[in-house]
Amino acid sequence: MANRTQEVSAVVEAFAACWNVHDMTAFGDLFAPDAEFVNVVGLWWKGREAIREAHAFIHATMFKHSRLTFQSIDIRFPADTLAITRAHWTLEGHVSPQGDALPARTGLMLNVLAQTPSGWQIIDSQNTDIVDGELSRPQ
Amino acid sequence: MANRTQEVSAVVEAFAACWNVHDMTAFGDLFAPDAEFVNVVGLWWKGREAIREAHAFIHATMFKHSRLTFQSIDIRFPADTLAITRAHWTLEGHVSPQGDALPARTGLMLNVLAQTPSGWQIIDSQNTDIVDGELSRPQ
Repeated sequence: MANRTQEVSAVVEAFAACWNVHDMTAFGDLFAPDAEFVNVVGLWWKGREAIREAHAFIHATMFKHSRLTFQSIDIRFPADTLAITRAHWTLEGHVSPQGDALPARTGLMLNVLAQTPSGWQIIDSQNTDIVDGELSRPQ
Repeated sequence: MANRTQEVSAVVEAFAACWNVHDMTAFGDLFAPDAEFVNVVGLWWKGREAIREAHAFIHATMFKHSRLTFQSIDIRFPADTLAITRAHWTLEGHVSPQGDALPARTGLMLNVLAQTPSGWQIIDSQNTDIVDGELSRPQ
């Protein structure tokens, strides 16, 4: 039986794996029914189905051929059945809303996971783009 | 004795209160010694002292006269001694690195707090700007 670090890491890795085959059914199943998700521009989705539908929309458009890679996944366990993970990611192959190719982006994604009878599930995600060379948001 | 929702809410409110009097000693004390913090441009600070020093720097410069207000603070308890909070914030009165006045900004800040013998402490923060009218980061 895998240890909890391996189990949690596998869920986070599955986030990228589902993203890269654009399987939003499997992607949604990584989340608890009442999970919340804040994306890089502060869109706040509440509940697994809202998270799934929002990602299905962007994977049908801007992110249709995009590829997500994790450079690192840090994991902490603040309680026996809870994990905090932070993944350093790169996104490539995405396009603008107008369909123009865009350069690679990087960011940091926080996930909080809980151990449930169905295994570890994401209960909260928040994502932030890395803006090199800035101390705060350029305005 | 206050209930846990009031106690957690008080810590998050203190984040803004310390910010607005620019007291980074008290601000740092809101965090656990091994807390982590990712700011809106993906700077990742590890440990209370790193969080305190980074905020002391920006409060001596860009954020010296800034004012942070929370419009809402949502709180969930995934375990008895852990809380996930998400605050919808507005920042005003900040300036650019060159000293020019900047318009108000809004964002969403996630905090994970743990109950300790010293009370509730922030163990992880991640902050994301709200970019109105976008589905993903404008590039």
